[in-house]
Amino acid sequence: MSTRDISELFNVRSHNPSFFAVQQAVASPRQLLDFCIPVNLHFPPPEMLKLVHDNLPEILRYYPDYAIVHQHHLEEITGLPADTIVPCNGSTEIITRLCQTAKTPIVTDVPTFSRWTDLPEELGAPLHLIHRRRENRFHLDAHEIAQFVREVDAATLVISNPNNPTGAWMTHREVEELLELLTDLDAVVIDESFIDFSDVESAGFDVLHHPNLIVVKSLGKSLGWHGVRLGYAVAAPARAQSLRNSLAFWNVNGLAAYVLKTVTEFRERYRSSFLQAALDREYMRAKLRVISGMVVYPSKANFLYVELPPLISGKQLRDRLLVKHGIMVRECSNKIGSSEQNLRLAVQTNEAVDALVAALSEELPL
Amino acid sequence: MSTRDISELFNVRSHNPSFFAVQQAVASPRQLLDFCIPVNLHFPPPEMLKLVHDNLPEILRYYPDYAIVHQHHLEEITGLPADTIVPCNGSTEIITRLCQTAKTPIVTDVPTFSRWTDLPEELGAPLHLIHRRRENRFHLDAHEIAQFVREVDAATLVISNPNNPTGAWMTHREVEELLELLTDLDAVVIDESFIDFSDVESAGFDVLHHPNLIVVKSLGKSLGWHGVRLGYAVAAPARAQSLRNSLAFWNVNGLAAYVLKTVTEFRERYRSSFLQAALDREYMRAKLRVISGMVVYPSKANFLYVELPPLISGKQLRDRLLVKHGIMVRECSNKIGSSEQNLRLAVQTNEAVDALVAALSEELPL
Repeated sequence: MSTRDISELFNVRSHNPSFFAVQQAVASPRQLLDFCIPVNLHFPPPEMLKLVHDNLPEILRYYPDYAIVHQHHLEEITGLPADTIVPCNGSTEIITRLCQTAKTPIVTDVPTFSRWTDLPEELGAPLHLIHRRRENRFHLDAHEIAQFVREVDAATLVISNPNNPTGAWMTHREVEELLELLTDLDAVVIDESFIDFSDVESAGFDVLHHPNLIVVKSLGKSLGWHGVRLGYAVAAPARAQSLRNSLAFWNVNGLAAYVLKTVTEFRERYRSSFLQAALDREYMRAKLRVISGMVVYPSKANFLYVELPPLISGKQLRDRLLVKHGIMVRECSNKIGSSEQNLRLAVQTNEAVDALVAALSEELPL
Repeated sequence: MSTRDISELFNVRSHNPSFFAVQQAVASPRQLLDFCIPVNLHFPPPEMLKLVHDNLPEILRYYPDYAIVHQHHLEEITGLPADTIVPCNGSTEIITRLCQTAKTPIVTDVPTFSRWTDLPEELGAPLHLIHRRRENRFHLDAHEIAQFVREVDAATLVISNPNNPTGAWMTHREVEELLELLTDLDAVVIDESFIDFSDVESAGFDVLHHPNLIVVKSLGKSLGWHGVRLGYAVAAPARAQSLRNSLAFWNVNGLAAYVLKTVTEFRERYRSSFLQAALDREYMRAKLRVISGMVVYPSKANFLYVELPPLISGKQLRDRLLVKHGIMVRECSNKIGSSEQNLRLAVQTNEAVDALVAALSEELPL
């Protein structure tokens, strides 16, 4: 496959091509090393896969349970009251719904998960972007956000914490400060899809005191299984009820429902997997930082945001890493507020990191 | 479990309890015979289950493909142009979306799949019901429908064909007649979720000539696997594009996507399974018709709609069949336009039908 064909493959507007599409296109007998998709490498345990195997005929055959069953399983996992939980077909389902019904103007932080910027644009909803700045290591401060929200008279604020793709975070204290400053907004949405990999406390319980708070959470990253499509939102009970009513029956499919139920039996390993992922991240950060001219930003997520040395094209580097080394990386030119000078590198095993560092050392000028 | 507890279990507003909930509640070592959930008994073949097993780690792990990949697989299966197809997380996803965005007033036929009546009510959308009448064996005529639509000045019409739960149908010619009469409506929605089990031609291709036509199709029934959550809508290309844009990315999960791709390799067996299901239906109809006092209506779906003898309580009969015989049936009191005098009996194997007939003969008065 030529480099031009590979660039075509990656030329999708707002996200990566699927792993299947790349694997098919490259058609290499070698296993690809994937630094694109941030996934939990320490979960699920093999016993969980075996349970799914054993129960596959029933999982496939019958209608899945209704939302209330998933709410109780999520209560067991998170400790949040079941009536605050909105189970979703992946977090994108609730993100789509929230964007479709948001009071405007909307403020969102950038760079961010592209659905938060693309959907308002597609829907014609007024959107203002608050830029995370490299000189602040992409950190945003509660007062800075609140001031921006006032300046544009926003009704809805969306913040991702930890931020995707930079890995920057607000502490729980800072989030509470932000909520106190914005009690009059229609909605303050905190996307915590990567928070499990951090030591930052979730704002989930704050919905009990802040009726305008909606916490959004993807589970694919945490579970290590993106194919199941599972996520949830947390909101005050009345708002949660209204959000649940706006989603389709059986939106959580049988496989996702079974996986969720099963996680409740592996809670300790689920929790400890995030600590292992944090150790992997620190190994990876230490290794990448020694590469000359590359900046590695602090991150509490299971990816690292890096800035390439000046004059290096992220797209060319991505293509060379794929073709010559069988390594997939994500350059960030299709994210508003980022550029092809930036890569978002999913945390990988120490062995894979060593391979990446060797490949980068070969491909980057000294 | 007491009969009262069982009635509680079935006391859900708009649909059956899940099979898992009933099985757990009854806790009988005996396998339940399920006449509630209409499912294809002749598909998928065991080889398909094996393929799912073999590919499970990848299915679970990676983000599923985008809509365009599913559109092409559905094109292979149906022959419809890919750009007219809207892949869905089960037909309820698109039904929910269509109800949320429908121009009103809406007309729908009753009895019908309860989401078509409950959602407009929940959303406060003006809804008028056109009643299918037993004296017409629940058949509706194109002119009768069009006249009703005019009387209430409807903007949206929803008709299920074949109808659920009665099994009554319109021929493709009648559907075309209806479309010709209603070219000025904003939307004519035909829910063809059970059409595969009939010899009625789908209206799918008519979207090429009728920009206001939207065909809705569940695939769980046809595939024999409800747990995967898979369905689609068909509409003229511009409308299909707009519908796709209104649904979340990755709405079709990895398992459903894999199953869909795999069906394209089993097309002949998929088609012939529906002919076998039709034979099962005729066997079941012949057997049930000899039960004294019970009316069995004509059906082209994979269920039969029956009327119990006078003075028989459908709820009590349902509970006795479950507790004494391990047989699950669906009485229709929670469907508008139906009552507990009616059961919708999913077509089952000849052996299961014989067991049902024996149980009914024991429970019903001579």
